[in-house]
Amino acid sequence: MNAQRPPSPEVDDPTLEADVFARNCTSRPVLQNVASRWGTLAMVALREGPYRFSALRRRVEGVSERMLSQTLQHLERDGLVHREVHETIPPRVEYTLTDLGIQVADQLEALIKVLETNLPRIQAAQAAYHRE
Amino acid sequence: MNAQRPPSPEVDDPTLEADVFARNCTSRPVLQNVASRWGTLAMVALREGPYRFSALRRRVEGVSERMLSQTLQHLERDGLVHREVHETIPPRVEYTLTDLGIQVADQLEALIKVLETNLPRIQAAQAAYHRE
Repeated sequence: MNAQRPPSPEVDDPTLEADVFARNCTSRPVLQNVASRWGTLAMVALREGPYRFSALRRRVEGVSERMLSQTLQHLERDGLVHREVHETIPPRVEYTLTDLGIQVADQLEALIKVLETNLPRIQAAQAAYHRE
Repeated sequence: MNAQRPPSPEVDDPTLEADVFARNCTSRPVLQNVASRWGTLAMVALREGPYRFSALRRRVEGVSERMLSQTLQHLERDGLVHREVHETIPPRVEYTLTDLGIQVADQLEALIKVLETNLPRIQAAQAAYHRE
Protein backbone atom coordinates (compact mmCIF):
# COMPACT_ATOMS: atom_id res chain seq x y z
CA MET A 1 0.00 0.00 0.00
CA ASN A 2 2.90 2.31 0.82
CA ALA A 3 0.78 5.44 0.76
CA GLN A 4 2.97 8.52 0.93
CA ARG A 5 2.93 10.03 4.40
CA PRO A 6 1.72 13.63 4.54
CA PRO A 7 4.28 16.23 5.62
CA SER A 8 4.70 16.50 9.39
CA PRO A 9 1.82 18.68 10.65
CA GLU A 10 3.89 20.24 13.46
CA VAL A 11 5.81 22.24 10.91
CA ASP A 12 2.77 23.99 9.51
CA ASP A 13 0.39 24.20 12.43
CA PRO A 14 1.81 25.96 15.49
CA THR A 15 -1.33 25.18 17.49
CA LEU A 16 -0.31 21.51 17.61
CA GLU A 17 1.72 20.58 20.65
CA ALA A 18 5.45 21.05 20.11
CA ASP A 19 7.62 18.00 20.72
CA VAL A 20 11.34 18.59 20.82
CA PHE A 21 11.97 14.84 20.46
CA ALA A 22 10.33 14.76 17.05
CA ARG A 23 12.82 14.99 14.22
CA ASN A 24 10.77 17.59 12.33
CA CYS A 25 9.54 19.79 15.14
CA THR A 26 10.47 23.46 14.70
CA SER A 27 11.44 23.67 18.37
CA ARG A 28 14.40 21.37 17.80
CA PRO A 29 16.70 23.66 15.79
CA VAL A 30 15.80 26.49 18.20
CA LEU A 31 16.86 24.35 21.15
CA GLN A 32 19.99 23.34 19.28
CA ASN A 33 21.05 26.92 18.76
CA VAL A 34 20.17 28.12 22.25
CA ALA A 35 21.82 25.10 23.80
CA SER A 36 24.90 25.27 21.59
CA ARG A 37 28.23 26.04 23.18
CA TRP A 38 28.28 29.67 22.06
CA GLY A 39 24.53 30.19 22.06
CA THR A 40 24.34 29.43 25.77
CA LEU A 41 27.26 31.67 26.71
CA ALA A 42 26.08 34.56 24.52
CA MET A 43 22.55 34.44 25.97
CA VAL A 44 23.79 34.34 29.55
CA ALA A 45 26.25 37.18 28.89
CA LEU A 46 23.42 39.31 27.47
CA ARG A 47 21.50 38.85 30.76
CA GLU A 48 24.09 41.26 32.17
CA GLY A 49 22.90 44.02 29.84
CA PRO A 50 23.37 45.25 26.24
CA TYR A 51 26.63 44.36 24.56
CA ARG A 52 28.41 45.57 21.47
CA PHE A 53 29.77 42.82 19.28
CA SER A 54 33.42 43.24 20.23
CA ALA A 55 32.70 43.47 23.96
CA LEU A 56 30.51 40.38 23.79
CA ARG A 57 33.27 38.55 22.00
CA ARG A 58 35.70 39.39 24.81
CA ARG A 59 33.15 38.25 27.41
CA VAL A 60 32.62 34.88 25.73
CA GLU A 61 36.24 33.81 25.89
CA GLY A 62 37.51 31.87 22.92
CA VAL A 63 34.67 32.40 20.42
CA SER A 64 35.70 33.33 16.88
CA GLU A 65 34.23 36.37 15.15
CA ARG A 66 32.55 34.13 12.61
CA MET A 67 30.96 31.79 15.17
CA LEU A 68 29.68 34.62 17.35
CA SER A 69 28.23 36.41 14.35
CA GLN A 70 26.46 33.25 13.16
CA THR A 71 25.19 32.48 16.67
CA LEU A 72 23.77 35.99 17.08
CA GLN A 73 22.11 35.82 13.66
CA HIS A 74 20.29 32.63 14.66
CA LEU A 75 19.27 34.06 18.03
CA GLU A 76 17.96 37.17 16.29
CA ARG A 77 16.06 35.11 13.73
CA ASP A 78 14.38 33.12 16.54
CA GLY A 79 13.29 36.30 18.32
CA LEU A 80 15.57 35.86 21.33
CA VAL A 81 18.05 38.66 20.63
CA HIS A 82 17.42 42.16 19.33
CA ARG A 83 20.05 43.86 17.14
CA GLU A 84 20.00 47.64 17.19
CA VAL A 85 22.06 49.78 14.82
CA HIS A 86 22.79 53.29 16.16
CA GLU A 87 23.48 55.72 13.34
CA THR A 88 26.70 57.15 14.72
CA ILE A 89 30.01 57.44 12.90
CA PRO A 90 31.15 54.72 12.91
CA PRO A 91 27.77 52.98 13.36
CA ARG A 92 27.35 51.29 16.74
CA VAL A 93 25.62 47.90 16.79
CA GLU A 94 24.19 46.75 20.08
CA TYR A 95 22.66 43.43 21.09
CA THR A 96 20.01 42.97 23.78
CA LEU A 97 17.73 40.14 24.87
CA THR A 98 14.06 40.27 23.91
CA ASP A 99 11.39 39.44 26.53
CA LEU A 100 11.38 35.85 25.36
CA GLY A 101 15.18 35.89 25.30
CA ILE A 102 15.22 36.90 28.96
CA GLN A 103 12.99 33.93 29.86
CA VAL A 104 15.26 31.56 27.96
CA ALA A 105 18.45 33.09 29.38
CA ASP A 106 17.08 32.77 32.91
CA GLN A 107 16.64 29.04 32.33
CA LEU A 108 20.15 28.73 30.94
CA GLU A 109 21.54 30.64 33.92
CA ALA A 110 19.75 28.24 36.29
CA LEU A 111 21.26 25.30 34.41
CA ILE A 112 24.76 26.78 34.61
CA LYS A 113 24.33 27.46 38.34
CA VAL A 114 23.55 23.78 38.96
CA LEU A 115 26.68 22.76 37.05
CA GLU A 116 28.94 25.37 38.65
CA THR A 117 27.84 24.64 42.22
CA ASN A 118 28.26 20.89 41.64
CA LEU A 119 31.65 21.17 39.98
CA PRO A 120 33.55 19.39 42.79
CA ARG A 121 31.10 16.45 42.48
CA ILE A 122 31.51 16.40 38.71
CA GLN A 123 35.29 16.46 39.01
CA ALA A 124 35.18 13.58 41.50
CA ALA A 125 33.04 11.58 39.05
CA GLN A 126 35.48 12.34 36.23
CA ALA A 127 38.46 11.21 38.34
CA ALA A 128 36.68 7.96 39.29
CA TYR A 129 35.70 7.31 35.66
CA HIS A 130 39.27 7.70 34.43
CA ARG A 131 40.62 5.43 37.21
CA GLU A 132 38.40 2.53 36.09
CA MET B 1 58.71 40.61 31.04
CA ASN B 2 56.70 37.87 29.39
CA ALA B 3 56.78 35.64 32.43
CA GLN B 4 55.06 32.37 31.63
CA ARG B 5 51.56 32.35 33.11
CA PRO B 6 50.91 29.54 35.58
CA PRO B 7 48.31 26.95 34.56
CA SER B 8 44.75 28.09 35.21
CA PRO B 9 44.03 27.44 38.90
CA GLU B 10 40.37 26.56 38.29
CA VAL B 11 41.40 23.28 36.74
CA ASP B 12 43.23 22.05 39.80
CA ASP B 13 41.41 23.65 42.67
CA PRO B 14 37.67 22.87 42.81
CA THR B 15 37.23 25.20 45.79
CA LEU B 16 37.73 28.20 43.51
CA GLU B 17 34.55 29.63 42.09
CA ALA B 18 33.60 28.05 38.78
CA ASP B 19 33.12 30.41 35.84
CA VAL B 20 31.64 28.94 32.73
CA PHE B 21 32.77 31.97 30.72
CA ALA B 22 36.41 31.23 31.39
CA ARG B 23 38.07 29.33 28.60
CA ASN B 24 39.75 26.85 30.96
CA CYS B 25 37.03 26.27 33.51
CA THR B 26 36.13 22.58 33.91
CA SER B 27 32.44 23.49 33.94
CA ARG B 28 32.59 24.54 30.30
CA PRO B 29 33.01 21.15 28.61
CA VAL B 30 30.39 19.75 31.01
CA LEU B 31 27.95 22.45 29.93
CA GLN B 32 28.87 21.82 26.30
CA ASN B 33 28.02 18.16 26.55
CA VAL B 34 24.84 18.61 28.58
CA ALA B 35 23.71 21.41 26.30
CA SER B 36 24.64 19.62 23.09
CA ARG B 37 21.87 18.63 20.73
CA TRP B 38 21.89 14.97 21.75
CA GLY B 39 23.00 15.50 25.34
CA THR B 40 19.92 17.60 26.06
CA LEU B 41 17.49 15.16 24.46
CA ALA B 42 19.09 12.10 26.09
CA MET B 43 18.99 13.70 29.56
CA VAL B 44 15.37 14.78 29.20
CA ALA B 45 14.38 11.32 27.88
CA LEU B 46 16.04 9.68 30.90
CA ARG B 47 13.83 11.80 33.19
CA GLU B 48 11.03 9.48 32.06
CA GLY B 49 12.80 6.48 33.63
CA PRO B 50 15.56 3.95 32.85
CA TYR B 51 16.24 3.23 29.19
CA ARG B 52 18.11 0.53 27.35
CA PHE B 53 20.39 1.85 24.63
CA SER B 54 18.19 0.81 21.69
CA ALA B 55 14.99 2.16 23.26
CA LEU B 56 16.71 5.46 24.08
CA ARG B 57 17.91 5.66 20.50
CA ARG B 58 14.34 5.27 19.24
CA ARG B 59 13.14 7.94 21.72
CA VAL B 60 15.73 10.48 20.58
CA GLU B 61 14.67 10.51 16.95
CA GLY B 62 17.46 10.78 14.44
CA VAL B 63 20.52 10.20 16.64
CA SER B 64 23.13 7.80 15.26
CA GLU B 65 24.38 4.85 17.32
CA ARG B 66 27.84 6.38 17.45
CA MET B 67 26.68 9.83 18.59
CA LEU B 68 24.36 8.46 21.27
CA SER B 69 27.07 6.15 22.56
CA GLN B 70 29.60 9.02 22.74
CA THR B 71 27.05 11.33 24.38
CA LEU B 72 26.19 8.74 27.05
CA GLN B 73 29.88 8.10 27.73
CA HIS B 74 30.45 11.80 28.41
CA LEU B 75 27.35 12.04 30.62
CA GLU B 76 28.52 8.97 32.55
CA ARG B 77 32.04 10.39 32.94
CA ASP B 78 30.59 13.63 34.35
CA GLY B 79 28.49 11.74 36.90
CA LEU B 80 25.12 12.63 35.35
CA VAL B 81 24.17 9.22 33.99
CA HIS B 82 24.61 5.78 35.55
CA ARG B 83 25.25 2.77 33.31
CA GLU B 84 24.21 -0.58 34.76
CA VAL B 85 25.09 -3.90 33.15
CA HIS B 86 22.71 -6.72 34.10
CA GLU B 87 24.38 -10.12 33.72
CA THR B 88 21.66 -11.75 31.67
CA ILE B 89 22.10 -13.60 28.38
CA PRO B 90 22.47 -11.48 26.35
CA PRO B 91 23.64 -8.85 28.87
CA ARG B 92 21.19 -6.01 29.37
CA VAL B 93 22.63 -2.48 29.69
CA GLU B 94 20.43 0.14 31.30
CA TYR B 95 20.94 3.89 31.66
CA THR B 96 19.50 6.00 34.49
CA LEU B 97 20.05 9.53 35.74
CA THR B 98 22.12 10.06 38.91
CA ASP B 99 20.84 12.47 41.59
CA LEU B 100 22.87 15.26 40.03
CA GLY B 101 21.66 14.15 36.59
CA ILE B 102 18.05 14.59 37.75
CA GLN B 103 18.79 18.16 38.86
CA VAL B 104 20.40 18.97 35.52
CA ALA B 105 17.64 17.25 33.51
CA ASP B 106 14.98 19.21 35.43
CA GLN B 107 16.67 22.44 34.32
CA LEU B 108 16.84 21.25 30.72
CA GLU B 109 13.17 20.26 30.83
CA ALA B 110 12.26 23.74 32.10
CA LEU B 111 14.26 25.27 29.24
CA ILE B 112 12.51 23.08 26.67
CA LYS B 113 9.11 23.95 28.15
CA VAL B 114 9.79 27.68 27.63
CA LEU B 115 10.76 27.04 24.00
CA GLU B 116 7.87 24.68 23.28
CA THR B 117 5.20 26.94 24.79
CA ASN B 118 6.60 29.95 22.91
CA LEU B 119 6.90 28.18 19.59
CA PRO B 120 4.21 30.28 17.84
CA ARG B 121 6.09 33.43 18.91
CA ILE B 122 9.39 31.99 17.69
CA GLN B 123 7.84 31.04 14.37
CA ALA B 124 6.41 34.53 13.95
CA ALA B 125 9.87 35.99 14.62
CA GLN B 126 11.40 33.64 12.05
CA ALA B 127 8.83 34.60 9.42
CA ALA B 128 9.43 38.32 10.05
CA TYR B 129 13.21 37.83 9.89
CA HIS B 130 13.03 36.09 6.54
CA ARG B 131 10.69 38.74 5.09
CA GLU B 132 13.21 41.49 5.77
